[in-house]
Amino acid sequence: MSIRIGIWGYGNLGRGVECALKQNPDMELAGVFTRRDPKTVQILTEGASVYSTEDVEKMKDAVDVMILCGGSATDLPVQTPKCAQMFHVVDSFDTHAKIPEHFAKVDEAAKSNGKIGIISVGWDPGMFSLNRMYANALLPNGKDYTFWGKGVSQGHSDAVRRIDGVKDAKQYTIPVDSALDAVRNGDTPELTTRQKHTRECYVVAEEGADQARIENEIKTMPNYFSDYDTTVHFISEEELKKNHSGIPHGGFVIRSGKTGWNEENTHVIEYSLKLDSNPEFTSSVLVAYARAAYRLSQEGQSGCKTVFDIAPAYLSAQSSEELRKQLL
Amino acid sequence: MSIRIGIWGYGNLGRGVECALKQNPDMELAGVFTRRDPKTVQILTEGASVYSTEDVEKMKDAVDVMILCGGSATDLPVQTPKCAQMFHVVDSFDTHAKIPEHFAKVDEAAKSNGKIGIISVGWDPGMFSLNRMYANALLPNGKDYTFWGKGVSQGHSDAVRRIDGVKDAKQYTIPVDSALDAVRNGDTPELTTRQKHTRECYVVAEEGADQARIENEIKTMPNYFSDYDTTVHFISEEELKKNHSGIPHGGFVIRSGKTGWNEENTHVIEYSLKLDSNPEFTSSVLVAYARAAYRLSQEGQSGCKTVFDIAPAYLSAQSSEELRKQLL
Repeated sequence: MSIRIGIWGYGNLGRGVECALKQNPDMELAGVFTRRDPKTVQILTEGASVYSTEDVEKMKDAVDVMILCGGSATDLPVQTPKCAQMFHVVDSFDTHAKIPEHFAKVDEAAKSNGKIGIISVGWDPGMFSLNRMYANALLPNGKDYTFWGKGVSQGHSDAVRRIDGVKDAKQYTIPVDSALDAVRNGDTPELTTRQKHTRECYVVAEEGADQARIENEIKTMPNYFSDYDTTVHFISEEELKKNHSGIPHGGFVIRSGKTGWNEENTHVIEYSLKLDSNPEFTSSVLVAYARAAYRLSQEGQSGCKTVFDIAPAYLSAQSSEELRKQLL
Repeated sequence: MSIRIGIWGYGNLGRGVECALKQNPDMELAGVFTRRDPKTVQILTEGASVYSTEDVEKMKDAVDVMILCGGSATDLPVQTPKCAQMFHVVDSFDTHAKIPEHFAKVDEAAKSNGKIGIISVGWDPGMFSLNRMYANALLPNGKDYTFWGKGVSQGHSDAVRRIDGVKDAKQYTIPVDSALDAVRNGDTPELTTRQKHTRECYVVAEEGADQARIENEIKTMPNYFSDYDTTVHFISEEELKKNHSGIPHGGFVIRSGKTGWNEENTHVIEYSLKLDSNPEFTSSVLVAYARAAYRLSQEGQSGCKTVFDIAPAYLSAQSSEELRKQLL
């Protein structure tokens, strides 16, 4: 019997989960849950239905794992604990400072209902965290570096769009090659914000808008741009649509550390991602951890977990014997 | 109380474990076990003792986890199951085809004595296997590539040394940059052995030896060299000592895969290692998994495990709360 997956929220992430399920034959889409009128939501999977989130309790026995596809600011803090009363849940909660609080709420809801909750799943937090953790455990005497990009930052793109005279915009975060190379060489430089990443903005200005003023407002914007070397390109709306409509992202997690009786040897561990679609990759990670949630529950476990708490084999559709034979 | 570690076998790997323990204050060296006369073995750790492997049973209650530092051909198949009757054990068994058999033997010994055994720990098998497995679970629709090097291959160096007229030799395995780049770009090329790696030999010839014959014997040696583009450099003994006495290694595990309803998006996951000392890095991995073995046993678990079966958090000296706060 396949694992029955519910999708809560049908934006880029929800659609990504739907696509990922297609590639995992041990799972099936049990339903998409939306706050909109279900009749207005078109999904891709033949035979699957869209339900109102208000009717979710009726689906209590039809869904094994609910994948929460809302935002971390206001959706997940409410939805994940609520759903954990009825289903095993997986979310991509990424407000770093609030993880302990979110963990506690999901843990309580999940434990008192015999459910598994896995939070902060994706690539950062998620696979990047996992690689930071493994590398720290292997090389306790070392230094971590995380670089993001090249990729689209939604928050920074939004910030540019809010500037007066800007019709549309896309912002790319780009790691600085020379900093990456220094870290890869096993040097352990102290890098400022400006030395690690540059920012590149593609801006469609409104007709007659003062481009010099827009460029200056971007480059001097505190928190978002003022600490970085930023390049601004003014382009046409057509160009933006044609060349900048994707949502690529990625990055690098590097740890370099010393071993040897006198710390004479240097080692560099690097993990990197190059993603055509940030939400589709995040969805793929969510789906693998949904499998893990289901399996852990089959063993009688309950409560909240993170990527740190889950043995890798639970993510794979293959058996332990197959994994040992084929991938070890 | 710290975790008491035994080292079985004191070659490069055993010494690496000793060095790694120095960096992990929650563990201590309980003793080194050797087949040699213990009086002839000098170790680095003040206050620690060397014992004969014949006296190991007397140390049953003084060691928590025994780290086996012998070879996979004849040592580990016997020693790991034997030690698993008395201690939790960790080894770096790397004879791929015999892993299921080794697993079964260690599992039986460990289970019937309430011990934990973790086998095939290191970087390949080990961290590379782990990364292949994670990447396969996240991107089921994709293709794996493993490249090794630049690094010293002990087996290939030995093969060159066995040639008549060769006094000493070192062989490096080198990944082909253009193949690496193609894979990183998300292409999924079919690569032959020759297209993935080249081999470079540094040879000290005996006086008067026929260098042309030696070079030809190397380049045409079946299994070891005939399928590769091989370069042979004749150098002096001094030069070999000065420039080629290290044991660096490393490599790349890359998976590229497709997502999207029509497989329209490509993602590339890459994990790489650049190691000054192959045995010291392997040792560092062994020590982290020794911590995991101890912790699993504290939970009452027993039997044989691999890196696939062990939740990442068990490797770290930090608590789950700290990990969530600092590394997630």
